[in-house]
Amino acid sequence: MNTSEFRRRGKEMVDYVANYMEGIEGRQVYPDVEPGYLRPLIPDSAPQEPDTFEDIINDIEKIIMPGAASPACTELETVMMDWLGKMLELPEAFLTEKAGEGGGVIQGSASEATLVALLAARTKAIHRLQAASPELTQAAIMEKLVAYSSDQAHSSVERAGLIGGVKLKAIPSDGNFAMRASALREALESDRAAGLIPFFVVATLGTTTCCSFDNLLEVGPICNKEDMWLHVDAAYAGSAFICPEFRHLLNGVEFADSFNFNPHKWLLVNFDCSAMWVKKRSDLTGAFRLDPTYLKHSHQDSGKLKPAFNIFLTDGPFHVLFQHWQIPLGRRFRSLKMWFVFRMYGVKGLQAYIRKHVQLSHEFESLVLQDPRFEICAEVTLGLVCFRLKGSNKVNEALLQRINSAKKIHLVPCHLRDKFVLRFAICSRTVESAHVQRAWEHIKELAADVLRAEKE
Amino acid sequence: MNTSEFRRRGKEMVDYVANYMEGIEGRQVYPDVEPGYLRPLIPDSAPQEPDTFEDIINDIEKIIMPGAASPACTELETVMMDWLGKMLELPEAFLTEKAGEGGGVIQGSASEATLVALLAARTKAIHRLQAASPELTQAAIMEKLVAYSSDQAHSSVERAGLIGGVKLKAIPSDGNFAMRASALREALESDRAAGLIPFFVVATLGTTTCCSFDNLLEVGPICNKEDMWLHVDAAYAGSAFICPEFRHLLNGVEFADSFNFNPHKWLLVNFDCSAMWVKKRSDLTGAFRLDPTYLKHSHQDSGKLKPAFNIFLTDGPFHVLFQHWQIPLGRRFRSLKMWFVFRMYGVKGLQAYIRKHVQLSHEFESLVLQDPRFEICAEVTLGLVCFRLKGSNKVNEALLQRINSAKKIHLVPCHLRDKFVLRFAICSRTVESAHVQRAWEHIKELAADVLRAEKE
Repeated sequence: MNTSEFRRRGKEMVDYVANYMEGIEGRQVYPDVEPGYLRPLIPDSAPQEPDTFEDIINDIEKIIMPGAASPACTELETVMMDWLGKMLELPEAFLTEKAGEGGGVIQGSASEATLVALLAARTKAIHRLQAASPELTQAAIMEKLVAYSSDQAHSSVERAGLIGGVKLKAIPSDGNFAMRASALREALESDRAAGLIPFFVVATLGTTTCCSFDNLLEVGPICNKEDMWLHVDAAYAGSAFICPEFRHLLNGVEFADSFNFNPHKWLLVNFDCSAMWVKKRSDLTGAFRLDPTYLKHSHQDSGKLKPAFNIFLTDGPFHVLFQHWQIPLGRRFRSLKMWFVFRMYGVKGLQAYIRKHVQLSHEFESLVLQDPRFEICAEVTLGLVCFRLKGSNKVNEALLQRINSAKKIHLVPCHLRDKFVLRFAICSRTVESAHVQRAWEHIKELAADVLRAEKE
Repeated sequence: MNTSEFRRRGKEMVDYVANYMEGIEGRQVYPDVEPGYLRPLIPDSAPQEPDTFEDIINDIEKIIMPGAASPACTELETVMMDWLGKMLELPEAFLTEKAGEGGGVIQGSASEATLVALLAARTKAIHRLQAASPELTQAAIMEKLVAYSSDQAHSSVERAGLIGGVKLKAIPSDGNFAMRASALREALESDRAAGLIPFFVVATLGTTTCCSFDNLLEVGPICNKEDMWLHVDAAYAGSAFICPEFRHLLNGVEFADSFNFNPHKWLLVNFDCSAMWVKKRSDLTGAFRLDPTYLKHSHQDSGKLKPAFNIFLTDGPFHVLFQHWQIPLGRRFRSLKMWFVFRMYGVKGLQAYIRKHVQLSHEFESLVLQDPRFEICAEVTLGLVCFRLKGSNKVNEALLQRINSAKKIHLVPCHLRDKFVLRFAICSRTVESAHVQRAWEHIKELAADVLRAEKE
């Protein structure tokens, strides 16, 4: 949407809200709809081509308003998570519509998704071990539980371990910064020999440092065989999997118990919107479920759900009560953002957006490769280019300092093993080739200054 | 703001955003400001009388935009939390401006605040016990830790215990549904005798069921003396403490380690915005802090902070890095909502809003008291009236069923001891006496139907 259409549509939305407020006394305080009303009213997958803004707004009045915040909020979320799951070609076990055991939920951040997965895995492991050995206390089990992730995993994984009160071990990644079977197996063997209980593995697709990919096809089967929960964190890279040419990067997700990525990072949905799927939703609800009277509703135990009484505690079909899927109790209506974005761009528009960013990062990569003073430090797969001046960390730190002090572009560095590395990330909605070219000219100039200063 | 002004201002905001997007290439990618730039630019407390909308928008352009998302997001949050803390007359130890050890942070929900407090308390207790007895493992300590709350506390407290992997015990409340010293002391003595380690108490001000108040002046000194973290949860009632006539309900907060309430519940700030203060912020950061390279910034360890490099990881003065204060890593700019609301209403406007609700709930209470068929079930202090038909739970369940099926008003019930109770909550921004009168007439009619049906 360009700014002139934004001006028009934005003002229409302001009037929509004002009209709603003016007419609110004429509305019913509670919806008439029955649970499950929403899904039949909308398509079962995202449109390939964009819908018009009029179509979307008309659907808001026709489909959302009669269902108010509850149950519409939960129901739209289950459908949008199915739409998105299908865009990624997730295995059917993760979708809600099949009335199976899985489903998707919007979390606030990948950190929360990792924590929720770890807590569910912890509860499951404790139940399993106590079923086998009823004399074991929870504390005795927790003391022995070990979680694993690659040494390239995001710090939020370590934090989830801290919060969950379990050990977390870093598996040394290979030359491509990927977790592989051999290193994981080695850790498992030595930990089991020491009496510990491996229970949880986080595999990262698209690490924060250099966008490397853990080897899911190797790691997944080990997790399944060893009865460890596998959580796949694709916070950044996940958006790219809507393109068939990048979908192979997700191969092996069929081994996962939970999968998460952030549409707010790279799929044009405003912050926050972190999409999480589980194969068995009772694993989540088992970890969190409590039912005080004031959260009960009329048909909760009868197998027939009614809309919840509280606008933030919303129910959907198939016994979906998202309050049991997450840390907070309250929820915002975040699936509306997904609905608008998916329809206004269409799947093709979103694919084109991803492809453009990947193409621009390869354009930057080739510029770097043409300059013998520089090196590329990790394979460029999506929108991130890790590069540096050949030479010391000191000279690269000096270059970063100059770049960020000039304030024309902004780079966030990382360490890859012992190397200080600069990261060029394509991430703006409006980025064009001209920006990339200009940024590279600017970097080259500053690099020349740095190298000159070094010689003096 | 009435709807006609909303139409005008809303459209101005749409243009503001569109203008920003059109001019974005002319803006610097990184702010020039120094950490701490913001506080001197705005008053040190909320205005008593409303500011004009023009004043606020001018300040956005003048004060926020030069500081971009970082560090403005964190800096405005620290100042708004100070404003709000002063509105509540919180002890100075909880404010950031004094450059002491405390401060405020916006969480997403009271559930998260309780969990964060419990995790901080757990870490502190483990450190203390391990310092005294280095041979103790974390698991050995966690097995013995016990947290306490009243039997009227919100279910999120129990959930925090589940997630944190510690025992939670419910203290029987007194005849006014309040936690008192005697019952708490009894539990502590028996648990200590059994070898357990009490470490955490949640006191609730304004319970969900009936808006009862735990006795902070009794419970607080016990917590301090026994080295237990005291968390005060005033999720709903907290907003009322901005009125001097209700401030006494907060007496005893000076004994607390952390305090939380939800401005999104009753202070006109849109969901979500949960305000949490701690006396010693290092207790929180000690529980969460991890520092990978990609979250580091240039002067982090030098005592001189620079704006962070990531728009969601924002720094403020006094080493405030909110990423270490919460579960998620990313943050939204929620303090803007507080700034707008506090300025558009002024403290007096917000006080008037609270007072009107409390007055309307007393109006409803007196209507109930005038009808001998009904009884009031708990003291009416703020905006909640707990009432029921004198008689069986069955007749009250039937009444609730009729009320909620008629869909003219909507009530959420609760259990007080063995009684099924109806809850009449004044919570709409636009509620008037006429609504209360109409609701009561409606309830009386349905009650007559229920009582007639019962006799037949």
